[in-house]
Amino acid sequence: MSREGLSTAAAEVPVAAVRTATEPLGEQDLRALDAYWRAANYLAVGQIYLMDNPLLREPLAAEHIKPRLLGHWGTTPGLNFCWTHLNRVIRDRERKMIFMAGPGHGGPAVVAQAYLEGTYSELVPNVGQDVDGLRALFRQFSFPGGIPSHAAPEVPGSIHEGGELGYVLSHAYGAAFDNPDLVVAAVVGDGEAETGPLATGWHGNKFLDPATDGAVLPILHLNGYKIANPTILARIPDDELTALLTGYGYHPYLVAGDDPAAMHQLMAATLDLVFDEIAAIQRAARTGAGTERLPWPMIVLRTPKGWTGPATVDGRQVEGSYRAHQVPISECRTNDAHRAQLETWLRSYRPDELFDEAGRLQPDLGLLAPRGDLRMSASPHANGGLLLRDLRLPDFREYAVAVDKPATTSAEATRVLGAWLRDVIARNPDNFRLVGPDETASNRLDAVYEVTDKAWQAEIYPSDDTLAPHGRVIEVLSEHQCQGFLEGYLLTGRHGLFNCYEAFIHIVDSMFNQHAKWLRTTNGIPWRRPVASLNYLLSSHVWRQDHNGFSHQDPGFIDHVANKKAEVIRVYLPPDANTLLSVADHCLRSRQYVNVVVAGKQPAPQFLTMEQAVAHCTRGLGIWDWASNDDGDPDVVFGCCGDVPTLEVLAAVDLLRQHLPDLKVRVVNVVDLMRLQDEREHPHGLPEAEFDTLFTPDKPVIFAYHGYPWLIHRLTYRRRNHTNFHVRGYKENGTTTTPFDMVMLNDLDRYHLVMDVVDRVPSLGSRAAALRQHMADARLAARAYTREHGLDTPEVRDWTWPY
Amino acid sequence: MSREGLSTAAAEVPVAAVRTATEPLGEQDLRALDAYWRAANYLAVGQIYLMDNPLLREPLAAEHIKPRLLGHWGTTPGLNFCWTHLNRVIRDRERKMIFMAGPGHGGPAVVAQAYLEGTYSELVPNVGQDVDGLRALFRQFSFPGGIPSHAAPEVPGSIHEGGELGYVLSHAYGAAFDNPDLVVAAVVGDGEAETGPLATGWHGNKFLDPATDGAVLPILHLNGYKIANPTILARIPDDELTALLTGYGYHPYLVAGDDPAAMHQLMAATLDLVFDEIAAIQRAARTGAGTERLPWPMIVLRTPKGWTGPATVDGRQVEGSYRAHQVPISECRTNDAHRAQLETWLRSYRPDELFDEAGRLQPDLGLLAPRGDLRMSASPHANGGLLLRDLRLPDFREYAVAVDKPATTSAEATRVLGAWLRDVIARNPDNFRLVGPDETASNRLDAVYEVTDKAWQAEIYPSDDTLAPHGRVIEVLSEHQCQGFLEGYLLTGRHGLFNCYEAFIHIVDSMFNQHAKWLRTTNGIPWRRPVASLNYLLSSHVWRQDHNGFSHQDPGFIDHVANKKAEVIRVYLPPDANTLLSVADHCLRSRQYVNVVVAGKQPAPQFLTMEQAVAHCTRGLGIWDWASNDDGDPDVVFGCCGDVPTLEVLAAVDLLRQHLPDLKVRVVNVVDLMRLQDEREHPHGLPEAEFDTLFTPDKPVIFAYHGYPWLIHRLTYRRRNHTNFHVRGYKENGTTTTPFDMVMLNDLDRYHLVMDVVDRVPSLGSRAAALRQHMADARLAARAYTREHGLDTPEVRDWTWPY
Repeated sequence: MSREGLSTAAAEVPVAAVRTATEPLGEQDLRALDAYWRAANYLAVGQIYLMDNPLLREPLAAEHIKPRLLGHWGTTPGLNFCWTHLNRVIRDRERKMIFMAGPGHGGPAVVAQAYLEGTYSELVPNVGQDVDGLRALFRQFSFPGGIPSHAAPEVPGSIHEGGELGYVLSHAYGAAFDNPDLVVAAVVGDGEAETGPLATGWHGNKFLDPATDGAVLPILHLNGYKIANPTILARIPDDELTALLTGYGYHPYLVAGDDPAAMHQLMAATLDLVFDEIAAIQRAARTGAGTERLPWPMIVLRTPKGWTGPATVDGRQVEGSYRAHQVPISECRTNDAHRAQLETWLRSYRPDELFDEAGRLQPDLGLLAPRGDLRMSASPHANGGLLLRDLRLPDFREYAVAVDKPATTSAEATRVLGAWLRDVIARNPDNFRLVGPDETASNRLDAVYEVTDKAWQAEIYPSDDTLAPHGRVIEVLSEHQCQGFLEGYLLTGRHGLFNCYEAFIHIVDSMFNQHAKWLRTTNGIPWRRPVASLNYLLSSHVWRQDHNGFSHQDPGFIDHVANKKAEVIRVYLPPDANTLLSVADHCLRSRQYVNVVVAGKQPAPQFLTMEQAVAHCTRGLGIWDWASNDDGDPDVVFGCCGDVPTLEVLAAVDLLRQHLPDLKVRVVNVVDLMRLQDEREHPHGLPEAEFDTLFTPDKPVIFAYHGYPWLIHRLTYRRRNHTNFHVRGYKENGTTTTPFDMVMLNDLDRYHLVMDVVDRVPSLGSRAAALRQHMADARLAARAYTREHGLDTPEVRDWTWPY
Repeated sequence: MSREGLSTAAAEVPVAAVRTATEPLGEQDLRALDAYWRAANYLAVGQIYLMDNPLLREPLAAEHIKPRLLGHWGTTPGLNFCWTHLNRVIRDRERKMIFMAGPGHGGPAVVAQAYLEGTYSELVPNVGQDVDGLRALFRQFSFPGGIPSHAAPEVPGSIHEGGELGYVLSHAYGAAFDNPDLVVAAVVGDGEAETGPLATGWHGNKFLDPATDGAVLPILHLNGYKIANPTILARIPDDELTALLTGYGYHPYLVAGDDPAAMHQLMAATLDLVFDEIAAIQRAARTGAGTERLPWPMIVLRTPKGWTGPATVDGRQVEGSYRAHQVPISECRTNDAHRAQLETWLRSYRPDELFDEAGRLQPDLGLLAPRGDLRMSASPHANGGLLLRDLRLPDFREYAVAVDKPATTSAEATRVLGAWLRDVIARNPDNFRLVGPDETASNRLDAVYEVTDKAWQAEIYPSDDTLAPHGRVIEVLSEHQCQGFLEGYLLTGRHGLFNCYEAFIHIVDSMFNQHAKWLRTTNGIPWRRPVASLNYLLSSHVWRQDHNGFSHQDPGFIDHVANKKAEVIRVYLPPDANTLLSVADHCLRSRQYVNVVVAGKQPAPQFLTMEQAVAHCTRGLGIWDWASNDDGDPDVVFGCCGDVPTLEVLAAVDLLRQHLPDLKVRVVNVVDLMRLQDEREHPHGLPEAEFDTLFTPDKPVIFAYHGYPWLIHRLTYRRRNHTNFHVRGYKENGTTTTPFDMVMLNDLDRYHLVMDVVDRVPSLGSRAAALRQHMADARLAARAYTREHGLDTPEVRDWTWPY
């Protein structure tokens, strides 16, 4: 790996030398920039504390103070410092930039900045640029009926709430992909830096192509403390920290201190170097002058926690300690001394100098904000729906598997999908990404490599295949990174798909939570434009991780997803390749959802022609007439949802036809899981009458489900016929064994399904016991065969639909 | 931070210089060690491929090959290499050591080592030390009815399955805590190293006290490839990798190559240096000679993936490429050339030299294994129940909150618990750890700092409080690390508690899955002894994250937990401090469970005296007579589960008594959530008759629940009276607001509960509409007041039980 070229020159500037670099700010610039920062800090403190008297034009009285003091001060001045300085760079260089507050609990900062830039008042008219507007701005913060305390979706310019820490770098890289002109400034909290996702997030630089992607500027904000503890990275020596960041592939610049004037000069000088270095890296890559990965510049900003806030309160250190984390001075309504200290603190920012008589930011300060879309609070990249372009989707019908007769031909569903995805990628060379944790080929989507490579900025050997500096696929063995990259990509107005082993998608349960909450909240914000859905393709699923065993077997992500608001959640379990194609096309066209698609990768029987598949997926569920012999009045209904359960149900139907030819059996297959729910609970919910038409009001229903059986009960418990629902699914029994042994272990196998019918259809009389015994014997024989031969029985392996 | 002392001397050995260090192995030692390694590799390949002919005493025929070839070869020779060399250290130094295979898919290696050490045959008699035993060993691997393909609980010496990657360092540090004589050798896969949890797991050294804890020896196994891709750490320059590991606080030694003889010498020489360095660090700390954190040695082992396996198969590179990941040569039953190549491969290990006529390892090789408990496969630390000592628990009754009259006094439940935990820690100074992601004080357990500190090996400032090199509390802003530390601690036979914000415990959903699966599996393994339960205390819960808002509001971990096997899962929602004490005592005495306890930290009304609390918790649920006026025949039943829902139910009861004094209301409080379930579904499940006695067979039940309401439906859908259950809970509505506004947003508030009663008790007649309107008006008034004043109404804030 070469260290030559421009970045080497930069790398040779020792960290400490930056302290003595030129002082790029003239006296007037320095004063103005400091005033802007003071204004932002003032607005932040005002939001935390004030109900009224927003410019302190009267002495501060108890009734001006909010009764509940909520918000986080500690990180706020640092965020304001970064934003204010980045504004200077944007103005000077006309660079498109967005800001991500890793410590998103610093909501007062990002709200203040959006207000100072005028964006807030444009989008929220009652928060105008005057005293009344200031009062409203302050009052609404963390107030009932107002806005949240964090960098929530309600905050213009925010696409990263930071409420749950750890994802800022993954989001930042995702936002930068395919945005060659964009710089994503990502403030990393030093507490946040202890999280696993953030610790691996630094490696995002191994996937960022300086030629075709934008830049990420990490600013590690070492303010030294978390809620109640110091942070690790603030308490290791500078050389150790420098080694760590260098080892992550960065060129770190240290900006450290607490004297505002000196720090302004240092930050400005450093940013000048940093943006020169970014420009040089990009120029080298874009002119073909360099193809090696170069270390990207980053900043280590070491400032006191709660900088410019009260040094001590009640004799205890606050500034520069963890006590600055939330509200530094409490009980300001009832404690006069505290209120006086608050007033002194607020006045230390000299609000009279900052705002004019009407309460508007002084015009000369207003000029420090960038204009129009260059304002970070108004960047269209931070309201990605504004930039969203529809995908150019190939006609999925052309990728259909031929199905002359159901359940007699075999295909690998995800492999079929891979061919379509290949052409999705080919047609959308800058607007779609496929991410996966080293599982894209394992999940049999490798057709995509016919038209693209995997993005890879680390070393490439001649023996490597399908790796390149620029590729549309990202493979990193971190589900957190996959999810974070994709979220950042989607929220900036693009499209994508995350393919993952089903069991391990739980690794991002909490990230999913946050994204679903984000989508749900943005649905209620008029100025937020819809973004593309987050699409999960879960393969290598619970029933076919028979080779890896118990640790790889878990279908519970569906349950987790179903806890979130119905308006943003969709779950599909297509039973074969053609239905998978239809579902995938639908998902990639959709907006503002999380779509979970579960599909197998192993050779499996195909059930529906493409025409049937489209009709079936359009309804979301339906009776499979070809598999039913009920003439509209079944003795028993089989429900099935998922590829393996559907296969077992059909094989069970076959057994029933052999052994009980007069039994009237109906088969209902479910693709769109939420159709099962009540229409009042989910927009896809099936009206009651239709549900009863399918599942009957009173006949036994044996439901074979892909996941944990109780989810079906949960979705159907309001249904009239619910008491007759008997659900089979995964009961948390698993190991390394054969596919059919897996279904037997969980009583989802065809033989057991027949036993379930026998147990629930009273009319069978004496035939019941015999057939039940026959099935029990078949199970024992199947198990014995498997333990002897290590394979499923020929009957099972070779079964096809014989009718 | 000083770099002086012994580790500096070591650090001054340049990485490359190790290559030219002495060759510590004599000719005979080298030959024996290589033979042992060959034996292990032979056994690994045999497990993957062979059904029969285990020592190749006949030519290899199709029927000797397993019909399904399952297992992972790529990592296996490297794991065997490490284990074999560590054995030499154990023998030479008599050091207690355990082995954690981060790439736990290398099951063939750890099984092989346990077999070579004799442990396997001791524990699994049918796998003896002869030809029949070898046949059984080979056949059972990844075979129906046999053992899993990974380092699963079935493998002696394993406490880390590694099926889901990323946790090996956290587990290793957890195992090393308070085990001063133990060395935990932790092999980190280079794919695994890309995961977030592993990337932060390196920082475990900031919490390990060399004086009182053991040592962790990370071995980063750079074999270069994942399933289908190169790994990041294998594709950055050595200087960048060295910087990264140095920045993580380690002193890395590189062992790189592919020539076995040279690599044996290099590894042996390096291990000698490494163990000298570990000894020096420990000696310095234990003699008081050094108090500064020193870099711990670690090894970077760079070997080809699938080392010693086939170089190419069908003309494509296998050894040294990702194609070595699973089964390098496929279709060996049907493809004669493949089978011949397999036979050549197997014979390359020269099995005839390794095993005697009877199939037993040659005696001189057997001597290379350590003896007795020093065998890593037989270490009691890897079967922690063997070492488990009961906690010395203070009598929780002595920490009781006085409750003269229910719901009139206030206490912070977790603060009360904190006092008890303080004394638990004091009485168990080497056997109990409290972990938390920087939330222990926030969760109001800070009484513990009266008797201990937070473990902290990074720099300590004079201004710091409660930090020390040795402390019983570990705070790191990584739920993954907290969970991993605790799992490692528990699985080696100790006790602990993880306190966490409720919403963010989802971060470890997938780790919880793996631990629950581990516990469940070990229940079925006769030689595994029970370990202490994994205890979660979830506080700062959904109803009282009103200040952080929506991102911090999620009660779904309970749902996630409920998907796992009932035999290992317990969920408790104590409504007040005394019930929390009783529950916590119960949990800390229990074995082999995951206990989830949800409890609030805010001042809240106290309901039960300690005597009542013990009785109530013993039953798990019950009628609160003092809150009921039903005389055995209620018109309506209130169920409540969780502190906030219980408060709202009691306030609703109060409203009903005021407005409908003749309405007969029963209150049933639930502490042990699983009591709601059917006794066939969960060992704690309530028998049907008892359930009907509590909830009636036919009366309306308004159930106020802490979490997502559908869980209550899921748990009770088989109950006779289920159709009359109407559940209120968290409906995924949240923001930054007041506590009462939060319950109103989700229709869980007292006024809405009264409306729910009104809607469901038909006998109310004309009074219903008026009361309903009255309650609706009260809601509107409460909301208006809150939006005006930023506070809940005085009625709500000041409410106490008036009867």
